[in-house]
Amino acid sequence: MYRTHTNGELNASFIGEEVTLAGWVQKTRNKGFMVWVDLRDRYGITQLIFDEERTPKKMMLEAANLGREFVIQVKGIVIERESQNTKMKTGQIEILVSEFTILNKSLTPPFTIEDDTDGGEDLRMKYRYLDIRRNPVRENLIFRHKVTMAVRNYLSKEAFVEVETPYLIKSTPEGARDFVVPSRMNAGQFYALPQSPQTFKQLLMVGGMDKYFQIVKCFRDEDLRSDRQPEFTQIDCEMAFIDQEDILHTFEGLTRHLLKEINGVDLAAFPRMTYDDAMQKYGNDKPDIRFGMEFGELNEVAQHKDFGVFNTAELVVGIAVPGGNKYTRKEIDKLIDWIRRPQVGALGMVYCRCNDDGSFKSSVDKFYSQEDLGKWAETTGANQGDLICILSGDKNKVRAQLSALRMELAERLGLRKSDEFAPLWVIDFPLLEWDEDSKRYHAMHHPFTSPKPGQLELLATSPGEVKANAYDLVLNGNEIGGGSIRIHDKETQALMFDYLGFTKQEAEAQFGFLMDAFQYGAPPHGGLAFGLDRLVAILGGQETIRDFIAFPKNNSGRDVMIDAPAAIDGAQLEELNLQLTNKS
Amino acid sequence: MYRTHTNGELNASFIGEEVTLAGWVQKTRNKGFMVWVDLRDRYGITQLIFDEERTPKKMMLEAANLGREFVIQVKGIVIERESQNTKMKTGQIEILVSEFTILNKSLTPPFTIEDDTDGGEDLRMKYRYLDIRRNPVRENLIFRHKVTMAVRNYLSKEAFVEVETPYLIKSTPEGARDFVVPSRMNAGQFYALPQSPQTFKQLLMVGGMDKYFQIVKCFRDEDLRSDRQPEFTQIDCEMAFIDQEDILHTFEGLTRHLLKEINGVDLAAFPRMTYDDAMQKYGNDKPDIRFGMEFGELNEVAQHKDFGVFNTAELVVGIAVPGGNKYTRKEIDKLIDWIRRPQVGALGMVYCRCNDDGSFKSSVDKFYSQEDLGKWAETTGANQGDLICILSGDKNKVRAQLSALRMELAERLGLRKSDEFAPLWVIDFPLLEWDEDSKRYHAMHHPFTSPKPGQLELLATSPGEVKANAYDLVLNGNEIGGGSIRIHDKETQALMFDYLGFTKQEAEAQFGFLMDAFQYGAPPHGGLAFGLDRLVAILGGQETIRDFIAFPKNNSGRDVMIDAPAAIDGAQLEELNLQLTNKS
Repeated sequence: MYRTHTNGELNASFIGEEVTLAGWVQKTRNKGFMVWVDLRDRYGITQLIFDEERTPKKMMLEAANLGREFVIQVKGIVIERESQNTKMKTGQIEILVSEFTILNKSLTPPFTIEDDTDGGEDLRMKYRYLDIRRNPVRENLIFRHKVTMAVRNYLSKEAFVEVETPYLIKSTPEGARDFVVPSRMNAGQFYALPQSPQTFKQLLMVGGMDKYFQIVKCFRDEDLRSDRQPEFTQIDCEMAFIDQEDILHTFEGLTRHLLKEINGVDLAAFPRMTYDDAMQKYGNDKPDIRFGMEFGELNEVAQHKDFGVFNTAELVVGIAVPGGNKYTRKEIDKLIDWIRRPQVGALGMVYCRCNDDGSFKSSVDKFYSQEDLGKWAETTGANQGDLICILSGDKNKVRAQLSALRMELAERLGLRKSDEFAPLWVIDFPLLEWDEDSKRYHAMHHPFTSPKPGQLELLATSPGEVKANAYDLVLNGNEIGGGSIRIHDKETQALMFDYLGFTKQEAEAQFGFLMDAFQYGAPPHGGLAFGLDRLVAILGGQETIRDFIAFPKNNSGRDVMIDAPAAIDGAQLEELNLQLTNKS
Repeated sequence: MYRTHTNGELNASFIGEEVTLAGWVQKTRNKGFMVWVDLRDRYGITQLIFDEERTPKKMMLEAANLGREFVIQVKGIVIERESQNTKMKTGQIEILVSEFTILNKSLTPPFTIEDDTDGGEDLRMKYRYLDIRRNPVRENLIFRHKVTMAVRNYLSKEAFVEVETPYLIKSTPEGARDFVVPSRMNAGQFYALPQSPQTFKQLLMVGGMDKYFQIVKCFRDEDLRSDRQPEFTQIDCEMAFIDQEDILHTFEGLTRHLLKEINGVDLAAFPRMTYDDAMQKYGNDKPDIRFGMEFGELNEVAQHKDFGVFNTAELVVGIAVPGGNKYTRKEIDKLIDWIRRPQVGALGMVYCRCNDDGSFKSSVDKFYSQEDLGKWAETTGANQGDLICILSGDKNKVRAQLSALRMELAERLGLRKSDEFAPLWVIDFPLLEWDEDSKRYHAMHHPFTSPKPGQLELLATSPGEVKANAYDLVLNGNEIGGGSIRIHDKETQALMFDYLGFTKQEAEAQFGFLMDAFQYGAPPHGGLAFGLDRLVAILGGQETIRDFIAFPKNNSGRDVMIDAPAAIDGAQLEELNLQLTNKS
């Protein structure tokens, strides 16, 4: 046994006891006649003391020379500390050391193992095992565990069964790109890693499992945007004999439980908003409703004047920035530069100051009267002291641009408080979305989503109008979960594949097993999946999912610590009946 | 809402209530004036009744014509059943149906959805979603969930943290074959799927995580023996600042908890046996100790007579078969045929009957006196009425053969009771084992296992003698877990790689990150991994792991339900910078 106690548990009640501790040297302080060593482990820090009156000289010297991150084991007596530290769990005591062993030495770490380290991102990723020794990283991983345990226990209690679905499945070139795995035993054939267990969880419903969940790794071979990972974790759920209301009720229950259990926050029933409303009011299907700044559509009050830019725009839309009238001209110009960046892509911005005396001052004063501007203020909900920011142009583009501006301004104004939680169900998603590249409609959620009852016929005439029984759960402006009621009969599923451009043969080859299954008494079913990485980050009051993943990959999909991916040897390739093309 | 109750919850206390139920038609009985339908879901079966006095004629007809596995929804009143069924949870009541909807039809299933189905293995695998509707399969999956929840809650309470390690890692051509995943973004390079999270859990210990676990999928591209799967699940565990005793104590605690919680069995401290003893007494490193039949080594008492076969053998060893003297000559001949099968490979068997009168009758009577045979009986612990079976030859081979015979006979004698649990720690495993194919020593556990203190030096002189801090947990003759104390300093690890035939460059390329990590204050650590599939099967009183996996693969590594693996299209290959060789 290497220790009788951890470094986080000793307090005054242990004074006089002999204990054995082990851990890492956080730091040493040498006053000559006295040496203190802070001994650290996962549980805390305990102060060790060596002094010239009570400690053998040799040990004293050894203690003084301990390097940072050395691993040591000590035996000693718990004594009362002279100057107590009320901020530490172990601040009342220290250990007068009688025996002392170095278990392992350490090179000087490439960055300091402190809450605020001097190590940059790249260095910390290369030495992730040292990064994990730092409190914030370790605490994030423990927090993640706490969340998953709460999820599992809640869903188990609700009669959900966690079922492991396979990782080696079949490639279906719909949606994102699959990672594939060559099969040695089946020459020329490949498995695919699942983008989600979607078809399997539906088959479990056909199989009468009734309530399924799984916390499961999923894989997408995408060109990585920042803060995306090629492997990510889902809380994947499915239920049978339910309608949309049952799903919303069940997973609102789970989310409320998590917020209560993990964050100590009691929330009332979650508001709901249709997709159309969300787009109109926030320009975004995952609005952050911790703050207002709702869109005011200004076509009626801003068009048909002499300002051509507005008159020719599909949409003129503005938001009121609380207290924004205090911005200087220079600050506003910077804001305009910000929205003109290619990432946002607006051409320009019209603004209108709402002065404290009730008057208005806009950047387009020559076209609009005070009365006109008053209507702008009314429509955007602007008060005296606010600034109205107005964009115009193509509806979809301008909404996305104004949404970006709204979020940016809210961030600057401190309105996105990490300890405030504003969940929102966004419902009634369109079934299909237009894809400019392929010039056709794609399934917005996935091809298994059922259209709203009675809307199947609309597919032929107004495909873009068809709404689905699809829903997202949004928390603080992030989509933390999404799902749908599924198609559960072969005819509708076949029709949907047909509509999405699958030939009969393709549909059969890729999803024949699912359509077959639907012929043997498939129950009505539906589900939802949470993105665990994102959920944990938000519950943890942070934004970056990488901080909640033990061994994340970088934006090129590399693990820089173990240096993967890597070349494999020729014999391995040969066994797989593969060869590299010249390109590689 | 599709139902107010499930089909497993209604009893006499609900009589008079109006309920809505949904589920599958298990069967219908039509007496003309009365129709009964058994409605099934995951939770049970509820009997529906339609009768000519109270049911509209049209509905009656529809009910009578319902096919098996149709999905229906009914509304009705809970009434008392005339002839109650005390074996069913819902046997006191039935539902007098007033409204009735077919939610989905079903083709006639390819096999009956009954506990004892008429479907063969292949058919059930192809239609696994229907197989899962059968009680035994579904109950196995629910049982698995119950076990994993018990594991997670126990380990969490013991301060273990479940940390997700990556699935896309680096290929290390040591041990079994890796499945590899071509990287599109890093042309010509490959990820590998983990055979276990071994190096990552060790890095978590270096990272101060202190106590780690994970229930995690692992992958091995092996030629599949029966009841092996290319993807399987481990309960993977690691602890820091521990020695072997701490590990055994901790995971004996977990196993005892599972046996108590899942099986209601209270077990005393688990016995321990060295590897050498296990091999000597049972010819096997995972002995089933639910029954005796220990090996008796007979060299001393059976050699140096005139029986050349024994005299030239490295080992003569026997077991006493309880009550075996009742076997006829024909039965014994069949037993001899059995051990001569290539799977066992013995050349022959000597036997000795222990008669009720205390006399002996052996198949080699001309070489041995009654006194000699008496010593055989003494050494093997045979009593009157037993049969002694004796094999001879090369020590390792003959032990394996006699072990196979021992297990086979115990099975036939009904000594392997599935509701009896006999755990056993096998400890002091050799560090290395000789590999005939490559004519060199391999790591018996893996290259990260530490030799016993002070035995590192033996490597140079008697490598086969070196014992490791490695241990297996055996339950009822199955290895359910295994692990070791790890090497935690760079020098020893480098020495071990060198000894195992790695060049410095290979060791650095494959495991450089781990040896680097060991330089920054790695704590002493060790761990253990349970094979979850096997553990669950044994706790469930069964032998076949496939029965506890939702969607297993067959012996060619195929999922016959979804028909994977499969060809992928040329564009996909091209993106991966790969082409198939002619062979495939």
